[in-house]
Amino acid sequence: MLTMTESENNSVPIPGPRNIEWVGDARTGHLRLLDQTVLPNEVTYLDCKDVQSVWDAIKQLSVRGAPAIGVAAAFGCVIGAQQDSFDASADHLATSRPTAVNLFWAIDRMKNVQPRTLDALLAEAKTIHAEDAAMCQRIGEHALAFIQTLKPQAPSHKPLSFLTHCNAGALATGGIGTATSPMYLAHQLGQPVRVFADETRPLLQGARLTAFELAASGIDVTLICDGMAGQVLREGKVDVVITGADRIAANGDAANKIGTYPLAVMAKYHGIPFLVAAPSSTFDMSTATGDAIPIEQRASEEITKGFGTRTAPPDVKTYSPAFDVTPAELITAIITERGPIQPVDADQVSRVLSSAQ
Amino acid sequence: MLTMTESENNSVPIPGPRNIEWVGDARTGHLRLLDQTVLPNEVTYLDCKDVQSVWDAIKQLSVRGAPAIGVAAAFGCVIGAQQDSFDASADHLATSRPTAVNLFWAIDRMKNVQPRTLDALLAEAKTIHAEDAAMCQRIGEHALAFIQTLKPQAPSHKPLSFLTHCNAGALATGGIGTATSPMYLAHQLGQPVRVFADETRPLLQGARLTAFELAASGIDVTLICDGMAGQVLREGKVDVVITGADRIAANGDAANKIGTYPLAVMAKYHGIPFLVAAPSSTFDMSTATGDAIPIEQRASEEITKGFGTRTAPPDVKTYSPAFDVTPAELITAIITERGPIQPVDADQVSRVLSSAQ
Repeated sequence: MLTMTESENNSVPIPGPRNIEWVGDARTGHLRLLDQTVLPNEVTYLDCKDVQSVWDAIKQLSVRGAPAIGVAAAFGCVIGAQQDSFDASADHLATSRPTAVNLFWAIDRMKNVQPRTLDALLAEAKTIHAEDAAMCQRIGEHALAFIQTLKPQAPSHKPLSFLTHCNAGALATGGIGTATSPMYLAHQLGQPVRVFADETRPLLQGARLTAFELAASGIDVTLICDGMAGQVLREGKVDVVITGADRIAANGDAANKIGTYPLAVMAKYHGIPFLVAAPSSTFDMSTATGDAIPIEQRASEEITKGFGTRTAPPDVKTYSPAFDVTPAELITAIITERGPIQPVDADQVSRVLSSAQ
Repeated sequence: MLTMTESENNSVPIPGPRNIEWVGDARTGHLRLLDQTVLPNEVTYLDCKDVQSVWDAIKQLSVRGAPAIGVAAAFGCVIGAQQDSFDASADHLATSRPTAVNLFWAIDRMKNVQPRTLDALLAEAKTIHAEDAAMCQRIGEHALAFIQTLKPQAPSHKPLSFLTHCNAGALATGGIGTATSPMYLAHQLGQPVRVFADETRPLLQGARLTAFELAASGIDVTLICDGMAGQVLREGKVDVVITGADRIAANGDAANKIGTYPLAVMAKYHGIPFLVAAPSSTFDMSTATGDAIPIEQRASEEITKGFGTRTAPPDVKTYSPAFDVTPAELITAIITERGPIQPVDADQVSRVLSSAQ
């Protein structure tokens, strides 16, 4: 694992609100989290000065996204050490989101710090943060380079136009996100960028989070309903479709937020590249193909009463898969921090994941 | 135009609530409308005993769907005649939804009734109602026959499984709807039927209306978010995708509620038939192809504040086409009351529309 200094964390400044920030020094400082539960209506911060407030923030989804949860928990361990209860705090924080692999991974790294001084612990938490930011940065660089090979003759005055789904953004990571990373990078480089963001029913992560974070960073973002993406693609408004992934099988089949697969099918029909941006940790090499990825079913009320208002018959049946699986054949390339995987098949996945960064 | 007796209107009884009903005789009777503005939370009826209440019901969308509006206005003219103000009432009713072609058409038919007795006027209004019901019935018969040619070996115990979008249902017509007509017919015939209904963002007609009317009729309906249709198709859960249409060009390109086109693209990818069910009056022969169909843009707040709750940044840009256009090449057949159009091209459109019923 590459270790980075804090300054590198800031190589791509994000003009929008920072989701995770340590304020002050190791001895008296605290963790400041953007409260994502009240976005986009309010931009408020949680100043977490004890371990329980960090635990609550993770539990209540004030901070969400697997990488961001890991980073927040690492800083939470520093607060535990400030209060002379490092071990109990670390164990307590691990109970906040029991299925979040990054959470356990980050806490284990903090437990391995020797000597366990406040300065060393804070340095390690900042390193975890910086490494995640660096990973986002590398994904963005690889993605942007790959996109430029697809569009070599694009006139520089024409915006590079993306369509994305859900939030694989800065708010979910310690850096500039995964799917969003080429958007932020191109914007930083002064290249005109335009983004269409699917609202992403049922939970509207696209409307609440992606539209918010891109707009806050000064990127031209247009919100659409999920069913509008076909018309937007048909009108030639999009150069590249890019999403994140929750889990990728060894052959490149990618599970992501429900509604991703239709975008891949439509991108294929329109001859538009469909990219998946994800760190190599997203690959589950023990799963041969996407057919073996279990699909979680969500609660009915997310569909029938998603906004506090009942909008469907109360006893109507629903079917609510949380994810869908996009087969490798529909994915133009998977962009990892180790480089692009193209064509997307088991051989290329294996080759890129085993390569040096 | 075929004239039907009232009894034929009832050839396919709909077990659910009736959207339009005349209660009583010509002299003292009145119009009863299902109030669709409070569906699905309440099933209440508006008893319209004066012309203004009919006007209000049309204006406020208590009754909606072009065919249903025409039928309601025809009954409204009878109420005008009861109150000795037929001409003024007819003219007033024509102002309730100025863009509804069926409204003017129905009122013109009522004006042509001679002699203009209450009995003759009520008979004409019931005829308009019955004709619309008969048209739905014929579309359903043609659709079901067509579907059976596509699935000749379907075991009788396996449900015939539909996926539909928006509401081209009984609530929008004087009968069993257009896209829904084969569902109701198959159900009446004792054939197991299963329907997946897209909720249909932004205005949720699928959740509020289609799921309601099918469930109220005892049909097995499952509500999904629009972005879930791809996964449902991929899992092999659907035999046929069927929608209505708002306007069909001379070559068969069909404009319908936004979100229809992605279903057609995905149906093609999965080798599943994609049908459009629409009366011949839906064809606009003066429009050569779908590219010439203007696409209305809807208000931003339907996306950003669709349920009374703001769910997106207040100043975010949106793009909100009300319709999309499905090219003829993606449509397996268009089912009209005159029979199926297949393959979908200008020659077949012309041939079927000029045929006898």
